[in-house]
Amino acid sequence: MLEYIPPGTRFHELPSPFAMKRGGELHRARIAYETWGKLNTRRDNAILIVTGLSPNAHAASHSDNPERGWWEAMLGPGKPIDTDRWFVICVNSLGSCKGSTGPASTDPDSGFTYRLRFPELSIEDVANAATAVVRALEVAQLACIIGNSMGGMTALAALLQHPGLARTHINVSGSAQALPFSIAIRSLQREAIRLDPNWNNGDYSELHYPESGMRIARKLGVITYRSALEWDGRFSRIRLESDRPDEEPFGLEFQIESYLEGHARRFIHQFDPNCYLYLSRSMDWFDLAEHADGNILDGLAGIKLEKALAIGSGTDILFPIQQQEQIAEGLRMGGADSNFIGTDSPQGHDAFLVDIARFGAAIGGFLEQI
Amino acid sequence: MLEYIPPGTRFHELPSPFAMKRGGELHRARIAYETWGKLNTRRDNAILIVTGLSPNAHAASHSDNPERGWWEAMLGPGKPIDTDRWFVICVNSLGSCKGSTGPASTDPDSGFTYRLRFPELSIEDVANAATAVVRALEVAQLACIIGNSMGGMTALAALLQHPGLARTHINVSGSAQALPFSIAIRSLQREAIRLDPNWNNGDYSELHYPESGMRIARKLGVITYRSALEWDGRFSRIRLESDRPDEEPFGLEFQIESYLEGHARRFIHQFDPNCYLYLSRSMDWFDLAEHADGNILDGLAGIKLEKALAIGSGTDILFPIQQQEQIAEGLRMGGADSNFIGTDSPQGHDAFLVDIARFGAAIGGFLEQI
Repeated sequence: MLEYIPPGTRFHELPSPFAMKRGGELHRARIAYETWGKLNTRRDNAILIVTGLSPNAHAASHSDNPERGWWEAMLGPGKPIDTDRWFVICVNSLGSCKGSTGPASTDPDSGFTYRLRFPELSIEDVANAATAVVRALEVAQLACIIGNSMGGMTALAALLQHPGLARTHINVSGSAQALPFSIAIRSLQREAIRLDPNWNNGDYSELHYPESGMRIARKLGVITYRSALEWDGRFSRIRLESDRPDEEPFGLEFQIESYLEGHARRFIHQFDPNCYLYLSRSMDWFDLAEHADGNILDGLAGIKLEKALAIGSGTDILFPIQQQEQIAEGLRMGGADSNFIGTDSPQGHDAFLVDIARFGAAIGGFLEQI
Repeated sequence: MLEYIPPGTRFHELPSPFAMKRGGELHRARIAYETWGKLNTRRDNAILIVTGLSPNAHAASHSDNPERGWWEAMLGPGKPIDTDRWFVICVNSLGSCKGSTGPASTDPDSGFTYRLRFPELSIEDVANAATAVVRALEVAQLACIIGNSMGGMTALAALLQHPGLARTHINVSGSAQALPFSIAIRSLQREAIRLDPNWNNGDYSELHYPESGMRIARKLGVITYRSALEWDGRFSRIRLESDRPDEEPFGLEFQIESYLEGHARRFIHQFDPNCYLYLSRSMDWFDLAEHADGNILDGLAGIKLEKALAIGSGTDILFPIQQQEQIAEGLRMGGADSNFIGTDSPQGHDAFLVDIARFGAAIGGFLEQI
């Protein structure tokens, strides 16, 4: 299987065996990560970033890889996450295909690609693996753990499972439990992949690849990552240029369709379908309430922090801002100086990637105060 | 091809040839319809209902077909649309597969099923065909035309193309133009069908049927017909009973997934995939502004009515209430006594089918005043 590892990626080998929450264990598994800035002598200026479903560890450019990262505008010298002050670590999630061990990796015991033999993956496992990197870098306590989207779940799981892991926390468009609308969307994305005959129960190759399923899954993702409001202004009912007609029956006609098509094409062969299935399902399973007898606020209050921020966008339909408000409330119950910021960014769930004016100001302002 | 015609359906043969807006014509095409109540001697108590994408003409039970209709609670003696007072006509849309001529019908010229040889279908064609039924019943002017969802588009097109067709209008969760979010959703539904190898450019059979594509399309439909708010209360994170485990890898686990699965199973072989593609695309194409030099409010103001109501739900993501507000505003500019009601029904786009308390009160109240 193809893995998609950016140059300049560093690796940490996890303790072997690495026990998984739902059973099974990994042998000689590794986590890909990148770092920016310098760890100070007190080792107390480290920030960990845990990501959404698809990003790699290349959040921003650095000397070993000058290519723009997925959070380039947020991270760097003088930027909201100021690498002149902070030592920043970004990890690629366990289960992904961007350098960390996942279903697309080779099982060292058998010599074969894991595929569906990879053990069931939970957010808690992703969190434990990310925490292991922090420990390996000899950081006793992070100054802050920042989690975006799925990473918001990962950060909460890490904080709950590893008390004292971080002094503060920024939860960006995250959630303490998956709710049925987002479960429905992700379930349908997985079904589109599973129904593609080329998926073949996970036993595909680059030549016989579940391209149709990945295409549907990605387009549905992009639809739910943005917002109707943004698209009304951006695409309205603009047609594609008439000199490039789509001759397929029922083919592309509107700019919005072409936009989705571009996203799908860029994604399809850049993310492993089995990894997608595992990571997607891990989000559906995540429920912090399971750690607190079914009470979500009690689960959050079990996390002890000095200071916390939960931020999101009112146009997010996948991780609606009520969920970030809930996180802020629960962390406050746990004793943190905890704030909620509901932005009116029009870009939906993806706002944290593009609306740097709002999200950068909030994140930068928070970090200046810690 | 299978057509799905309820018992007790009546038929009207359209003028032949029947010219289509985007070119081509139909020969000996017909429209399926049902009626309730009695036309009075002045022939001024008729109401026409035009439907969403998938319903047949069986809006409610009647003596020829006692089975419950899709708007049973709304329509009947003493109900909000009171058939003791009104003579109600409901038509199955041109292009559908529930009795009216569409891509699943036999082309009388060739003897073969139309399939993709059916001419391009627009909402304006659906409107013209529905209007032909009204004319055939010798109703000079409808007391009211009621359009739900896609039918809201159809009603506006009928009113604009046939001045004086109706004295009043109720637009239920409708829209005067398709916007990019709903285009994106429908485009993806169509793509799921088109990517199914069994679709075979429309040349499928019941044995080789694009079941996977229809399954994805329907589930995506149901996701966008309801709302996250409703599902939080209704399904939350409830699991399926453990004695019925889904052994498929990545199979069903949550109640919300099983709910979608039930909807998909009931739909798949009850609606023709090519008809679905044609009707779906007709909605994307619909833009009343095209009838008024690009100005949507001017397009609406071109419709002359005594009285109008546009109603919708604040949780509707497919036909958001701003669109019903716009319809009410434009019809008011055209001189109608026009009102907008934005309900807080939690059931999203489908609220008009289930929240009879709110929608029935509004529709019944309107009809009492005309």
